[in-house]
Amino acid sequence: MELNENETLDDLENGYSLLQRRDGFRFGIDAVLLSDFAKCNVGRLIDLCTGTGIVAVLLAAKTEIPHIDAVEIQKEIADMAARSVRYNKLEERVRIRCADLKDAPDIYGKSVFDAVTVNPPYMKSGAGLVNDADIKLISRHEVCCMLEDVMRVSADLLKTRGRLFMVHRPQRLADLIYLMRVYKIEPKRMRLVAPMEGKAANLVLIEGIKNAGSELRLMPTLYVYEKNGAYTKEIDTIYGR
Amino acid sequence: MELNENETLDDLENGYSLLQRRDGFRFGIDAVLLSDFAKCNVGRLIDLCTGTGIVAVLLAAKTEIPHIDAVEIQKEIADMAARSVRYNKLEERVRIRCADLKDAPDIYGKSVFDAVTVNPPYMKSGAGLVNDADIKLISRHEVCCMLEDVMRVSADLLKTRGRLFMVHRPQRLADLIYLMRVYKIEPKRMRLVAPMEGKAANLVLIEGIKNAGSELRLMPTLYVYEKNGAYTKEIDTIYGR
Repeated sequence: MELNENETLDDLENGYSLLQRRDGFRFGIDAVLLSDFAKCNVGRLIDLCTGTGIVAVLLAAKTEIPHIDAVEIQKEIADMAARSVRYNKLEERVRIRCADLKDAPDIYGKSVFDAVTVNPPYMKSGAGLVNDADIKLISRHEVCCMLEDVMRVSADLLKTRGRLFMVHRPQRLADLIYLMRVYKIEPKRMRLVAPMEGKAANLVLIEGIKNAGSELRLMPTLYVYEKNGAYTKEIDTIYGR
Repeated sequence: MELNENETLDDLENGYSLLQRRDGFRFGIDAVLLSDFAKCNVGRLIDLCTGTGIVAVLLAAKTEIPHIDAVEIQKEIADMAARSVRYNKLEERVRIRCADLKDAPDIYGKSVFDAVTVNPPYMKSGAGLVNDADIKLISRHEVCCMLEDVMRVSADLLKTRGRLFMVHRPQRLADLIYLMRVYKIEPKRMRLVAPMEGKAANLVLIEGIKNAGSELRLMPTLYVYEKNGAYTKEIDTIYGR
């Protein structure tokens, strides 16, 4: 495996490794939690805004899903993700494609996926701090895809009863739930993630089912740290430690 | 104070008391949490689906709000609430009215309230167990007012920037958030309430602001019980113990 300058090859501690840019957007706990929340043994799944391919690779490790597509708009990052897939010998199961997610229904077809995962840009354009580096900018902000595009495209890609799994910031929960309803992906399961007990959640995991009836099931709030600063047991389990 | 047959006069332990029916819907922690969540010193507030008037009386105790209107559709219950208000000498601040909440904008006027509180029926018609007693039925189920009516009426009653405070079941969270958006009461603050750590929330407190911009602030999950079965400190504080 030859690394490009400015790349690292990081051991995921599950038998797989991942290429990341030293100075780019590096995966965090949100990707790990999303892949755990989205564990399902379906036939065909697509990961939107895949970036380095972290969610696709983690899902390949955690599930038996035979066919995982993954879309990334930035060519350099998509190439890196494809090299990670080859390095992990996952080419048979994981296919990275450089494309605008808005074109995904034309590329893959409508109503063809059993599941969609997405860890989309968290901030609205213009909100929050904006970095100089373009790559970080695109990964963190809604420069290329707005949340509404993600929802419309997911609805197009999913079969009826297909499942959308998303991680986002709780500040956007009203946007999320409203848009899921508008695009007929009914919110069915939700979990808040907070740093520790007594702190407000800073992530939300949500599952929607296309064309399902209304009734949301809440899971217990997931805490990342114990009061003493150690990871909680559940986080250790999710990380496979 | 003369009690009707089948009534109890219950000490609220805050200087006030409340009439309740022995065999009717008796107030629970949801009313107490809602009145705490809704503490604000505004000029004019209306409590919809007031029932025995519990939220109105608790708010009169917790705040300086000079003008609290309260609407209850069931005549017998509205009469009992009005007698509680008189018993507590709160007639100057709390006015109970027997009316269908759908008529409230005609009765009180549009865009006249700074705040609305509501602890609406939790279950959809046809969902959950249905009791024989009509009064319990109306109080627990959406027989007389659907959630959408509550939202439309609240939007009509509130001034711009006026605040809606609601308690509901998390299963209805998607309905809640969707309808708030539709009626331009933007969800701005939310708190989940769970029996204890590790358990899923069974109540949600939500505040919306009429015509506000989007960004939801989550509060830490509120737990009712410690692992040892005692009330948590925060619950004791809310109950004023």
